Amino acid sequence: MLYLNGKIISNSDATIPTNDRGFLLGDGLFETIRCAQGSPAELEAHWNRLAMGANYLQLPLLLSMNEAQHNIEKLLAVNNLNQSAGARITITRGAGARGISIPQHCTPTILITVFPRNKNTGSTSLCSSHIRINEQSPFTRFKTLNYLDKIIARQQAQNNGFGDALLLNTKEHVVSATTANIFFVKGKTLHTPAIEEGALPGITRQKIIHFAAEQHIACEEGTYMLKDLLTATEVFITNSIIGVHPVNAINKIKFNALPKPTHERFHALFE
Amino acid sequence: MLYLNGKIISNSDATIPTNDRGFLLGDGLFETIRCAQGSPAELEAHWNRLAMGANYLQLPLLLSMNEAQHNIEKLLAVNNLNQSAGARITITRGAGARGISIPQHCTPTILITVFPRNKNTGSTSLCSSHIRINEQSPFTRFKTLNYLDKIIARQQAQNNGFGDALLLNTKEHVVSATTANIFFVKGKTLHTPAIEEGALPGITRQKIIHFAAEQHIACEEGTYMLKDLLTATEVFITNSIIGVHPVNAINKIKFNALPKPTHERFHALFE
Repeated sequence: MLYLNGKIISNSDATIPTNDRGFLLGDGLFETIRCAQGSPAELEAHWNRLAMGANYLQLPLLLSMNEAQHNIEKLLAVNNLNQSAGARITITRGAGARGISIPQHCTPTILITVFPRNKNTGSTSLCSSHIRINEQSPFTRFKTLNYLDKIIARQQAQNNGFGDALLLNTKEHVVSATTANIFFVKGKTLHTPAIEEGALPGITRQKIIHFAAEQHIACEEGTYMLKDLLTATEVFITNSIIGVHPVNAINKIKFNALPKPTHERFHALFE
Repeated sequence: MLYLNGKIISNSDATIPTNDRGFLLGDGLFETIRCAQGSPAELEAHWNRLAMGANYLQLPLLLSMNEAQHNIEKLLAVNNLNQSAGARITITRGAGARGISIPQHCTPTILITVFPRNKNTGSTSLCSSHIRINEQSPFTRFKTLNYLDKIIARQQAQNNGFGDALLLNTKEHVVSATTANIFFVKGKTLHTPAIEEGALPGITRQKIIHFAAEQHIACEEGTYMLKDLLTATEVFITNSIIGVHPVNAINKIKFNALPKPTHERFHALFE
């Protein structure tokens, strides 16, 4: 079951018209939210990012955060997802006339889906992509429906036998994995690419920065080259669904398992 | 009436499932094609670009060019669009499981719509946008479903009282308007931004370059700054639907109507 434009209906009945601007032009936004014990986690942070994006897109948010929470909880219940789960809220500008100009009147499409969340065990490998993130783009600050560059970067990495792609920006600075922020440890300091480099201001990224401060671990948001990452003692990626996930290799460089890795502490705090 | 996955159906019956990757992730491509006398024009050039994009995306093209032509002609006939019209072919990866990884098996969604094409008269104004095109992106070479940057650039220009946005790339070089290539005249030479600057290899752009060669007009594909455009004697934009369309102003700089503008000759050749 899912939520579509005010109704909870079966997945198989859920369709949108072919003139939805989300479908034709990628004119929309989404959020993917971790859920536990039948409720969404950090919904306010996700909602703030969604609202900021909607404001930039001049896209009216027809749902309140409380209504979103209520519907996610209802969906988790009817789908028997009482343990670890995830929810995705998708908002598009809705149906409109031909062309890219934004119609004067349009009714946004709102879709909410839920899914089981499998706790990630093990680790992943990254392969640096030739696809570059445009760090000057205002759209790196929120999650738009324009994911083709990341889809293809992931696919090319997987074709080469890696788990995911490592993305650099047009200045060759490290940005992130395709759907996760990246952190690395050097000496006693934790590092993560600054938002200005094109990194998504991830909700889990922000939580890790907060945990680090609480634990008195120095954490820098900076500008890094690929070589900074390759000479780290530890690398991990984060997002709301995978949580804190270690990276075992980047390109041909392998990271040896440490006796007491930093990521395990963050993983425990996050979960 | 439109064409959806092998069938010609009414617009109001045409829906796609909410888990179509075109809708959720912008995972797809499109082409917009000028039609005249009941047939698409330059279909082979459009099809070649679509096929190149599909190949890069590893997206199987389930339709042949002949089938596309046949269906466009059928749609133009049933919709009584016997004169000037346009067609849009949209191809997405189809429905898939959650996440950006490309599913092993998926059946692409194919949508073809047709619409009346009003001959553009008059002229338009452009406002330079703060949104930058990533000239390093392989996706500038074809038309993907990821149009949010262009939608917002157009909207911001229109909010400022202009007809469309002028887009620069991350190096501040001129690229194009939001949905049209740009040309300008200086002395006796026609200029247009090179493909390497992030300009779409437009079908009409290519036709203009071809017409210029036939007419012994020098035409250069180069690297240009905004000031090069602002000191031109004539500026026009081109795409398959608007054809050749003059620009009367960029930002605060107005272009005076010339007694024998170059664009009129190209307009006549194109139409």
